Amino acid sequence: MGLVMADDVLGRGLQRVQREVDACFDQLLPVPDDARAPLVEAMRYAMIDGGKRVRPMLLVTVAEMYGASRDAAVRAGCAIEAIHVYSLIHDDLPCMDDDDLRHGKPTLHRQYDEATAVLAGDSLHALAFEILGGTLVSTDPFIRAELVHALASASGHNGMAGGQVMDMAAEKEQFDLHGVTRLQQLKTGALLGAAVEMGAILAKVPEDARGHLRNYARDIGLAFQIADDLLDEEGDEEKAGKALRKDAGQGKATFVSLMGVEGARAQARALSEQAIGHLSGHGKEADLLRALARFIVERDR
Amino acid sequence: MGLVMADDVLGRGLQRVQREVDACFDQLLPVPDDARAPLVEAMRYAMIDGGKRVRPMLLVTVAEMYGASRDAAVRAGCAIEAIHVYSLIHDDLPCMDDDDLRHGKPTLHRQYDEATAVLAGDSLHALAFEILGGTLVSTDPFIRAELVHALASASGHNGMAGGQVMDMAAEKEQFDLHGVTRLQQLKTGALLGAAVEMGAILAKVPEDARGHLRNYARDIGLAFQIADDLLDEEGDEEKAGKALRKDAGQGKATFVSLMGVEGARAQARALSEQAIGHLSGHGKEADLLRALARFIVERDR
Repeated sequence: MGLVMADDVLGRGLQRVQREVDACFDQLLPVPDDARAPLVEAMRYAMIDGGKRVRPMLLVTVAEMYGASRDAAVRAGCAIEAIHVYSLIHDDLPCMDDDDLRHGKPTLHRQYDEATAVLAGDSLHALAFEILGGTLVSTDPFIRAELVHALASASGHNGMAGGQVMDMAAEKEQFDLHGVTRLQQLKTGALLGAAVEMGAILAKVPEDARGHLRNYARDIGLAFQIADDLLDEEGDEEKAGKALRKDAGQGKATFVSLMGVEGARAQARALSEQAIGHLSGHGKEADLLRALARFIVERDR
Repeated sequence: MGLVMADDVLGRGLQRVQREVDACFDQLLPVPDDARAPLVEAMRYAMIDGGKRVRPMLLVTVAEMYGASRDAAVRAGCAIEAIHVYSLIHDDLPCMDDDDLRHGKPTLHRQYDEATAVLAGDSLHALAFEILGGTLVSTDPFIRAELVHALASASGHNGMAGGQVMDMAAEKEQFDLHGVTRLQQLKTGALLGAAVEMGAILAKVPEDARGHLRNYARDIGLAFQIADDLLDEEGDEEKAGKALRKDAGQGKATFVSLMGVEGARAQARALSEQAIGHLSGHGKEADLLRALARFIVERDR
């Protein structure tokens, strides 16, 4: 399967997941007829018609590869996307990255206010676990508890939130390549890894048969972040829908500052190929994962 | 059992839970030897040697009444306390209530900075579900999933966070007694209700045998908030360990502004007695819950 065709299949696949995630949040978040209305409107503003939905796409693809129900996987995908989006809302706050634009729209605290942004983030955080703990995703409580544990572990101080703190420290002290790699494994890699893990949990893939999936997730996680650093250096702000070139302005160590543009691009592509290599035991059913590994390093936003 | 003796038993009970919760977080939160150290130190600062631990006390007491393991209940109590504390950290932020003092110590954003306070709150939020989703609390996945669902539902936009948004709206528009009651049922009542519910889940109390526990929780939840409003009006700032008389300064409707001091006090006591009435089917094993219902309206902090 060539790259063009793979991209086409991937494009349709991403659009389908985007529609499903939007429909799910539209249903999950009716605006109440009381003083909470602005909170729920803010949650909808952040969640619906939002991002690329890479994490739900990963989760759904792995789950379907192993025969799990797509509906259940989309709902679990909504939980991981709620965690991703809450983290973007909080990262964009004035006391953190102080960003005005996200996905081409004003950030939540610019559109509403800071208090609403903090609480909408907190409410999406809780909603993720309300989805996974309830019977929407699975009637099997073991699957529900495992999904909760995988997502909570990947998003707290030993995962995404810990990585964000490291990222702030990197503005003050110069990280080396090992430090930046570790930072990004936590900040971005942990949640991408959780997406793949949660797909495997939903489909009841035994622990000892998940090694190649974890290796795939680790490689695309790192490739994803190197591509992000390249976009920050070379990308188009309009396509990205957010402010770029902030890291260089702060003199912060990134994969690009440490490896150079060409070195970083070569490394991202090598990781993408290596990720695809981990799928050699699979046939056509893993084509979407292969296409996703290519897309992650070639995307322009 | 007289009030003095009950208070004595309750005092020892609360101290025991406080020690257990502190020990649990000391173990759960080792400070890592990397750039995440300030984050985990901030989480420890907020969690250890903190508050009255009313929610873990409720959870542990209900769980033990019905024969669940105390160790498991303490761990589930740590999860609900982590949610309570994360909400205080975020509520104290400059963009929300802008408070400088909590439990007699500088609030987290005053001791560290705003970004650390946002992320420490987020990390405690995740930690709560990491505790409940893992096998620390129970090897029975049904119990774990039910605990997650009860806590997540009570803390998101249909519970605590929704109540906080209503509370902010109450600074701008005048709420009536029905509105204030609804607001407080979400802001404080939902989590106190979850504490009791989680104790019942741990002890596998059947759904249809939980009605009197839910009624007890509803009544003490409301009594707790009326007592809080009375403390805000009449309390000693040093004992409370936080700024008081903020609501009156903002002209915000509270139980005290709507019912008067004497009316509010009478209502709190009536609710406390009503809560105790719901326990009439229990013997001595519910004495701690009875003492807690009295303490909640008579406390001075």
